[in-house]
Amino acid sequence: MKVALTPLDFLERARRLYGPLEAVVDGERRVDYTTFVGRAHRLGHLLVDELGVQPGDRVAYLCANTLELLEAYYGVLLAGAVLTPLNIRLSRPELQQIVEDCDARVLVMHPSLAALAPTTASGTTVVIGPDYEAALGRQPASLVDPGPIDEDAVCELFYTSGSTGEPKGAMLSHRALATHALDAALTMGVGHRDVVLHTIALFHVNGWGTPHWVTALGGRHVMLDRFDAGEVLRLIEAEGVTRLHLVPTMASLLLVHPDVGRRDLSSLVQATVGGAPAGPELLADLEATFRCEVISGYGLTEASPQLTKAVTLRSHDGLPEAEQRRRRATTGLPNVGVDLRVFDGNDQEVPRDGATAGEICVRSNHVMIGYWNRPTETAEALAGGWLRTGDIATVDAEGYITIVDRKKDVIVSGGENISSVQVEHALCAHPAILEAAVIGMADERWGEVPRAFVALRPGVAAPTTDDLRAFVAERLAKFKVPARIDILPELPKGGTGKIQKSLLRSREDA
Amino acid sequence: MKVALTPLDFLERARRLYGPLEAVVDGERRVDYTTFVGRAHRLGHLLVDELGVQPGDRVAYLCANTLELLEAYYGVLLAGAVLTPLNIRLSRPELQQIVEDCDARVLVMHPSLAALAPTTASGTTVVIGPDYEAALGRQPASLVDPGPIDEDAVCELFYTSGSTGEPKGAMLSHRALATHALDAALTMGVGHRDVVLHTIALFHVNGWGTPHWVTALGGRHVMLDRFDAGEVLRLIEAEGVTRLHLVPTMASLLLVHPDVGRRDLSSLVQATVGGAPAGPELLADLEATFRCEVISGYGLTEASPQLTKAVTLRSHDGLPEAEQRRRRATTGLPNVGVDLRVFDGNDQEVPRDGATAGEICVRSNHVMIGYWNRPTETAEALAGGWLRTGDIATVDAEGYITIVDRKKDVIVSGGENISSVQVEHALCAHPAILEAAVIGMADERWGEVPRAFVALRPGVAAPTTDDLRAFVAERLAKFKVPARIDILPELPKGGTGKIQKSLLRSREDA
Repeated sequence: MKVALTPLDFLERARRLYGPLEAVVDGERRVDYTTFVGRAHRLGHLLVDELGVQPGDRVAYLCANTLELLEAYYGVLLAGAVLTPLNIRLSRPELQQIVEDCDARVLVMHPSLAALAPTTASGTTVVIGPDYEAALGRQPASLVDPGPIDEDAVCELFYTSGSTGEPKGAMLSHRALATHALDAALTMGVGHRDVVLHTIALFHVNGWGTPHWVTALGGRHVMLDRFDAGEVLRLIEAEGVTRLHLVPTMASLLLVHPDVGRRDLSSLVQATVGGAPAGPELLADLEATFRCEVISGYGLTEASPQLTKAVTLRSHDGLPEAEQRRRRATTGLPNVGVDLRVFDGNDQEVPRDGATAGEICVRSNHVMIGYWNRPTETAEALAGGWLRTGDIATVDAEGYITIVDRKKDVIVSGGENISSVQVEHALCAHPAILEAAVIGMADERWGEVPRAFVALRPGVAAPTTDDLRAFVAERLAKFKVPARIDILPELPKGGTGKIQKSLLRSREDA
Repeated sequence: MKVALTPLDFLERARRLYGPLEAVVDGERRVDYTTFVGRAHRLGHLLVDELGVQPGDRVAYLCANTLELLEAYYGVLLAGAVLTPLNIRLSRPELQQIVEDCDARVLVMHPSLAALAPTTASGTTVVIGPDYEAALGRQPASLVDPGPIDEDAVCELFYTSGSTGEPKGAMLSHRALATHALDAALTMGVGHRDVVLHTIALFHVNGWGTPHWVTALGGRHVMLDRFDAGEVLRLIEAEGVTRLHLVPTMASLLLVHPDVGRRDLSSLVQATVGGAPAGPELLADLEATFRCEVISGYGLTEASPQLTKAVTLRSHDGLPEAEQRRRRATTGLPNVGVDLRVFDGNDQEVPRDGATAGEICVRSNHVMIGYWNRPTETAEALAGGWLRTGDIATVDAEGYITIVDRKKDVIVSGGENISSVQVEHALCAHPAILEAAVIGMADERWGEVPRAFVALRPGVAAPTTDDLRAFVAERLAKFKVPARIDILPELPKGGTGKIQKSLLRSREDA
């Protein structure tokens, strides 16, 4: 018997089995699964019956982690539409570009983000708050029948900046999201009694993997609309949080917060750290403070997102703690359902010597269908039936992957991907700039921040670096503005005339 | 990206991640995953290159729980063939009927079962032992490339006696087995460090669900070729077993074994009891002895097999132990990936009142494609897109299912299904018997045993009940022979002339 693989089954499971159990804690609001599922179905009615959403239409969300965004993970799907959560840290022009790229039929936004709001072609914008509640309230209490689900159809569309600077929408199918949720939960050992604090934005890689498995298993969702170390520590204690996901920047902020020694954190079972490399020192500090398992992990927008978790094996159980931690600080082992290989230039696996580097390539049902309306980039990303991640890694004798570089020169700052190419383009838009090269610079707080090198057009008046930073800030999100800009007489070039970023990275002042 | 869902991925995952870890303990033999995976691939080569197995051919196994049967779960699939494990408790004529029904291309058998061995049309029989080892040994060490897998193709074929008495082969697809394994593991909370004692025969419902998830997660398999309570207790202690599955008969034997107080059973995390209803008293005794979670469960050959587990919910955590145990003794809640409903005669769900009974119906990827070469029975079993289980159950307010009767009059004895119709047919083959009706009779050791009522042809010499029992024993497996036979002047009939078994069940001597 063949039944469509879809995350909607998780909602139905929750409705049938977990109705009276608390589902979501969002500030002062607490809703049980009956209420949560009911709201998702009312949202489905609202989208179809009042807003005229047609099957396959995109419904964009501009919203931090709230109950409304969580219910969209099911309500939009019940309407037969495609959920497109937007990154609220982008600039208005960037958001406008995305909404136009996917031709969003409806935009649902939080009122606090009104200044950022792009306009949709159809002009339908729903503002979360009293009007939204009233709209849900007037919907019928009946269940939405989404009709037959095509498990291979687009279910969620997530934009990633990638390396080209142009935002690209990764199309994730029902099948991808359903298998990903269960495979990830099984890899991490998640269960019904888990309480997950959504520290990472749900619109974000590493964030949106969680809603589906928590719901499928009837766990508790605890929302956090904006990362605040004190609030995270308070919620762990108050809600008995068992699991949370962190980027290294968040982890560092938690460790130095004055409340860290004053809160009861004993409910924690596992903390995962991803989004950027975390050293064994950070893991050790976290383990000492949280007294729970802390492991690294790795994921990509294009892969729903989780690919690895740095779990230890039973053969390590007798090893010294430092030996086990060294493994937990690697990029990890592939999750259940993920065939991950590190290939040399001929698609042959590199030796498991912990030294030879190759590109991480992935075959999995979790991998996207492709990029929205971008056949060329899709063909390139999925060449030969493998997702070409652009991440360069080594593999040790036990199979642990360690990322050592990024083929695509993406800068990861506070868990956000920054395309160096996009920042270069913004700089080059300035009339005085001839050429620009942007690289990542180590930063204690953010992991990496963008650093730019520019050469000026001959004969122009030299701008100050503050001028240049202000110029970029008008065009791009704040976190993409180079933390440092060096004006050089010319940029180093290779034989083909290509700027040699490697020389810039190895400068003495780097 | 779409990748075929198949249990073969579990073997490959084990090969890549768990190579040096111990995989299987079978008596004196201990093999790691590298060896286990290597043997499975050599078996694949043997079947294809030496025995001429073609894609889709059936390969039958007549074997207790051994390393060889376990490796067949992958080696046969690598050969592109369909695994058909046979129930070694059947009689030779019954086994012959199955082998002919599925037209097995090869029979692999354990030498201890030679007396039972059916003959295959092609005549190829492989005997486990030195010749088999030599045959594996001469195969290349290279990996078998099974080619592209069709996830919807038949992967395993399991025979069930069902209600008609004719053995029917339930066709389970790659997709069914792959999703079942992960969904079941997630429902039970299984992980990499689990050590599973295969107490139930792998050729048997409730037995064959386990091999795939243990392998996928890199756990340890501990084989048990024949249930022996003392040996089970010894293995729990010696191997640090964390999980085992029992039928009530096994559970009862364990509880009264003299070693039960002498063995260290502290490694146990969970025991599941299925195959027949287990009362709260039995669960309480098991919990007191094993000091681990003990839960009931329910499955069917047609469903890969697990459908429910009687897990408690977090809302029960504060309840008195007896209240929690009452729930663990029900038939349970549906597993992840299982849409289970209890329908009245109009396919409407019965009220959740714990009293109104209906038929358990299931929609799930775990459900069979259909019965081998039996389109009529398939259409009936899967009518309207639901697996019609024939099990009659109630649902309580929380959604817990409790089976109260069997629509199809199947008798469950020591975890074995006995078709009352099949036994009736065997009795009616006796020249003196006019008609026969077989029902289940409560039995302390086996749960249920068959009890027969017969009426004789007029004018014939009356046989003794011992004669009749001997007559049946020539035709059917020993456990199907009625424990008691009553000769009546006539059997009670309803208006349509159908024998009223309900009246026989409610006799004073029942």
